[in-house]
Amino acid sequence: MVTSEPFMSELRRDPLSDRWVIIAPHRSARPQEWTSVAVAATAPCPFCVGHEEQTPPPIATYPPTAGPADWQLRVVPNKFPAVAGDEATAGGHPLDAAGGEARPATGAHEVIIESPRHVVSFAELSEDEARLALRAYRDRLLALEQRRGLAYALIFKNARAEAGASLEHVHSQLLASPVVPLDVQYEATKTSEHQQMHGVGILERLLEQELDAGRRIVKVTPRFAVWCPFASRFPYETWIVPRQPAASFQHTAEEALAEAALLLREIIARLEDLLERPAYNFWIHSAPFGGRHAYHWRIEIVPRLARLAGFELGGGCFINPIPPQQAARELGGGAAGRDGS
Amino acid sequence: MVTSEPFMSELRRDPLSDRWVIIAPHRSARPQEWTSVAVAATAPCPFCVGHEEQTPPPIATYPPTAGPADWQLRVVPNKFPAVAGDEATAGGHPLDAAGGEARPATGAHEVIIESPRHVVSFAELSEDEARLALRAYRDRLLALEQRRGLAYALIFKNARAEAGASLEHVHSQLLASPVVPLDVQYEATKTSEHQQMHGVGILERLLEQELDAGRRIVKVTPRFAVWCPFASRFPYETWIVPRQPAASFQHTAEEALAEAALLLREIIARLEDLLERPAYNFWIHSAPFGGRHAYHWRIEIVPRLARLAGFELGGGCFINPIPPQQAARELGGGAAGRDGS
Repeated sequence: MVTSEPFMSELRRDPLSDRWVIIAPHRSARPQEWTSVAVAATAPCPFCVGHEEQTPPPIATYPPTAGPADWQLRVVPNKFPAVAGDEATAGGHPLDAAGGEARPATGAHEVIIESPRHVVSFAELSEDEARLALRAYRDRLLALEQRRGLAYALIFKNARAEAGASLEHVHSQLLASPVVPLDVQYEATKTSEHQQMHGVGILERLLEQELDAGRRIVKVTPRFAVWCPFASRFPYETWIVPRQPAASFQHTAEEALAEAALLLREIIARLEDLLERPAYNFWIHSAPFGGRHAYHWRIEIVPRLARLAGFELGGGCFINPIPPQQAARELGGGAAGRDGS
Repeated sequence: MVTSEPFMSELRRDPLSDRWVIIAPHRSARPQEWTSVAVAATAPCPFCVGHEEQTPPPIATYPPTAGPADWQLRVVPNKFPAVAGDEATAGGHPLDAAGGEARPATGAHEVIIESPRHVVSFAELSEDEARLALRAYRDRLLALEQRRGLAYALIFKNARAEAGASLEHVHSQLLASPVVPLDVQYEATKTSEHQQMHGVGILERLLEQELDAGRRIVKVTPRFAVWCPFASRFPYETWIVPRQPAASFQHTAEEALAEAALLLREIIARLEDLLERPAYNFWIHSAPFGGRHAYHWRIEIVPRLARLAGFELGGGCFINPIPPQQAARELGGGAAGRDGS
């Protein structure tokens, strides 16, 4: 990490979630009394080629004709699913009515093993593997949006222990459930209202503003813009956003999908160079299933450089010591925008 | 931790925040490839008695007449404040208008050093120290709610590194700012609507239901009820709630404050016995400053047993492997309620 530039603290409201963030650069200078050490276990990895019997039978294999030992990507059920089954299988489950609303945790919880090789990061995938990963995400979302009783599916990656990974081998997860996450629902509603009032979505307008200003832009390709958002919750938080608004990730055309895959791989490689291979998460925010939702899908990448503490959990408000324009510049962007600023 | 009982996963909506939580007990069995090791540094502790010159001059000292070396509790400005000053001092600060709403991060960020002794946990405070801590919280909130331009103050504690503490010595923090956290604002609005429609607050009704059901109750005292909430986001999440609804923590009478202090100390001691001294946070949720808000203050205690991962951060939804009635029972409660269930 690089020393922060002079920058007075600001409270910023994220226009999508309406959450306030405190951008407080000098906080990065505070001492840390503890150091955390990650210890890799020696147990054989259940995701490596040759250990296929350690996972449940695959939901999908790529290429589809691959035998047990020559696959490139596998999708398997999570062995410890947070959600599973459907309303029929959950039939007789008695719910506790005393405390509030409850329903059986039906849905799907899947693991996407993105390489047969024991690598850790999306940046270590080959170009082919990166493209295949996003195709597999798309295929699974297309299949699950057809399944009755599911309202949303979140694709997310936990890379390295500090980001919540319990296994090292490169993989992402998909969790589909009958409820829409509150933040996604909030944004969809707000976007729809914005569109009716202004004829343009919130993120579409933000994209225009960011391209004009330039200082938070990391990279622009024919189909995508990459920037560090104005009210970044996390240091070096980076978004990959389609330049043409599109509600659902899974309806992205093949060429755009390939472009997004290589961009994601490149941005994670830049973050890893800059921040010495940090733990990180990424997730795909996309429209709820069914109907026509006003939404603008995107990939959000978040390095995990500090632990979330009582203020974040209790206040729902984040303190970010790295101003996003500094993050964009350190990631190789931050050039003057179309308005020269 | 104790093996979980048979319990089918449930999706539960928290009646206050409307957030969904997945209660997924079998998740606690999943393997963890890494172990995290906390390393205590050897640097002299700036919060210990005799090192007073290492902190900025105190905002308050208890007792007020104490000399530099015979204090019982000190409140000092945070040396790396996330917010500071007021609108006058922030006068000429130019804001970046391209990305959204922004304002200078004015406010107060204070540290409450709860003992001159180098202990780590609130449970290690003496009874006198615990009572004094809550009196100091109250005094600071009473002072800050008089200050112009502040809308909210969150008191929170980060105990141990995994909970975000950067110093080991027992302390809490106070962060006061001109904006109200979204979750608190949401709950205040919802409580007000509920009160108009049903003549009773949401948390007041919940309290009645929990006392009737009994199974999530940990302890009841003359003025407080302690329970593990129905839609607990975190394993062993525990709330201390006044039985008579009251909007603001800082207007609690002296006797009730003392009762809350000893209860907080006792519940943290129980959590530490059960979970082998986990990192934990607690925070006080209280009404926004100014005006008459419909709110019901409480203390929320959260042991930090697992890292937040992409699903929690990206979905705003939590996966909790410990059903709250199991948590309540392990904490010494969970008895049959007033309805015998």
